[in-house]
Amino acid sequence: MNTNIVFTRDCAVGLKEKLEDVPFASLYLLADSNTSRFCLGHLGLDMFPVARRMVIPAGEGNKTLDTVARIWQWLSVSGARRNAVLLNVGGGVVSDMGGFAASCFKRGIRCVNVPTTLLAQVDASVGGKTGIDFNGLKNEIGTFSFPQWVLVDNGFLATLPFRQVLSGFAEMLKHALLAGNGHLEELLRADLSQVAEEPFLHLIEKSVAVKAAIVERDPEEQGVRKALNFGHTVGHAIESAAIAGGMEMYHGEAVAYGMVAELYLSVRKMGFDRQRYEAIRRFIQATYLPYVPVAGAEELYGLMLHDKKNEREGVNFSLLRAPGLFEVNCYCSREEILEALKEISHASDNS
Amino acid sequence: MNTNIVFTRDCAVGLKEKLEDVPFASLYLLADSNTSRFCLGHLGLDMFPVARRMVIPAGEGNKTLDTVARIWQWLSVSGARRNAVLLNVGGGVVSDMGGFAASCFKRGIRCVNVPTTLLAQVDASVGGKTGIDFNGLKNEIGTFSFPQWVLVDNGFLATLPFRQVLSGFAEMLKHALLAGNGHLEELLRADLSQVAEEPFLHLIEKSVAVKAAIVERDPEEQGVRKALNFGHTVGHAIESAAIAGGMEMYHGEAVAYGMVAELYLSVRKMGFDRQRYEAIRRFIQATYLPYVPVAGAEELYGLMLHDKKNEREGVNFSLLRAPGLFEVNCYCSREEILEALKEISHASDNS
Repeated sequence: MNTNIVFTRDCAVGLKEKLEDVPFASLYLLADSNTSRFCLGHLGLDMFPVARRMVIPAGEGNKTLDTVARIWQWLSVSGARRNAVLLNVGGGVVSDMGGFAASCFKRGIRCVNVPTTLLAQVDASVGGKTGIDFNGLKNEIGTFSFPQWVLVDNGFLATLPFRQVLSGFAEMLKHALLAGNGHLEELLRADLSQVAEEPFLHLIEKSVAVKAAIVERDPEEQGVRKALNFGHTVGHAIESAAIAGGMEMYHGEAVAYGMVAELYLSVRKMGFDRQRYEAIRRFIQATYLPYVPVAGAEELYGLMLHDKKNEREGVNFSLLRAPGLFEVNCYCSREEILEALKEISHASDNS
Repeated sequence: MNTNIVFTRDCAVGLKEKLEDVPFASLYLLADSNTSRFCLGHLGLDMFPVARRMVIPAGEGNKTLDTVARIWQWLSVSGARRNAVLLNVGGGVVSDMGGFAASCFKRGIRCVNVPTTLLAQVDASVGGKTGIDFNGLKNEIGTFSFPQWVLVDNGFLATLPFRQVLSGFAEMLKHALLAGNGHLEELLRADLSQVAEEPFLHLIEKSVAVKAAIVERDPEEQGVRKALNFGHTVGHAIESAAIAGGMEMYHGEAVAYGMVAELYLSVRKMGFDRQRYEAIRRFIQATYLPYVPVAGAEELYGLMLHDKKNEREGVNFSLLRAPGLFEVNCYCSREEILEALKEISHASDNS
């Protein structure tokens, strides 16, 4: 695993220990308005010489080239050198954007990520993907670049709104579907009001291990890593449409709806067990907010045609034969996709 | 060597052969206004399905984030996929900026570079550095990213203005000083009116080999690669000041003046032979335009403090004990630097 992830119940101690290992001239701290308010107090930052801090507004809508340009301007004007370290404290927006900024500033400075949302802890923490949204498309611009260290402390989740807990949990469900080793049942039984407690840290660790194992086999997403896009081909289209329409939609919510559609495609094309699909659909339906259509099916299909995985005409999915048995590069037809999209509304309508 | 460089007298044939090796969905061509006018005709592009072309205005002043954003917008709107290939035809500005754009678009698409200036052929063609100018600083933002292929055809140099020939020749002098194997004498005898002829292609090839050998030992510039910055610590400061002042100054001109100052520092601190220094200074003085001060010495010193190589207080130089014997991480004092800067004016004044 190219990323060094530390699971800890005391981030301040972990951070101090790790930063002592990294010879650095100066530390730059990037946070968003939420983490600046709720999280920085837990970092023990008075123990380090933090040169400068920058706080960006929270929210995916700020994951833009403009914000990255502001980060570069801040680093450049502050005289940050190539051996500076950028400490990204926040959700995926902060680590994606801070990671991208760091990977290009003076052709690359190091960064240390402290993910403070469940989504960032189970997903953005591993894999070395950085990026920003551009031209209305998610992560259209970015790099593959690994942070020096990632510190995962689920104590931060105590102040996380429940909708955001659910957003991260969708990625955990996805990892469990890809792993297929009983981890799925463990998650379906989990008490989501206890995500900041010690036992849940072990579920996070298991979830990260699923992703890490896949990324390790294919760091640059030439093959099997595409499996991690399960639920995301439809999910990204839903999320992009929501952004374009100014509607509030969390990444994991879009992925949860996307997984319903893509499990349906898996049933239809790959022989995934229909009853198992129905059970997962009911769970998602009972757990997540009802799906509010963010765009017409044709518009969502149009967005899927922009998906980075597509290497020829059509839309490229990663689908499942069964939990743990995935297949990448499954191209589906327009008709199949439109049919699958109906299942999402169905999942909400017929509750 | 991570870059595959092909030296050829018939770029069209070389390009056709190489592109046939690269499975790609679509070809995107980036050129500047000069290369669009003088060079595209020699590429045999009618043999390929070039999906789209984009022509950017020529000149370092356009190597900006705004231009990169336009390139990204163009690729994104055209529906370029992750397996697209960006063909950069032009000088260092085109390959630096096109290379940067490609390395971040959808987290990295491939590119093929066809350098059409001597500077780009001997310098930007190898080493995987991409970048743009930002906050008034050269290459402040960029990545390390290698093109799939580089095609070097010195036939393009037939239409290159002589000042630009000299600009590239300065980097060849630098490589020769770093190699120290008699290649310097060969260059000092070269007929610069014949750069587009076959014999000169071999000098280009030798020059590239010097750089390639150094880059191979240290791709990410942790150590010996810094030697390639010889002449550039002062040179970049001069060039940055010229850009800021709206004065016309070619990169290699700034490097030629920079080498005078840094050879002087080499004499003063590293025991470089003074007579040899004087001979090279006279050659540069006789060959290049007289140095027109672009900024006061204190201002140039201030710019050097921003140099990416600096890892502590002070200015970090790569200096020479003798041709072929370089040393990196030589920090010089403000006083030494101000004294060396006088040598550049001296070189022009006392001609």
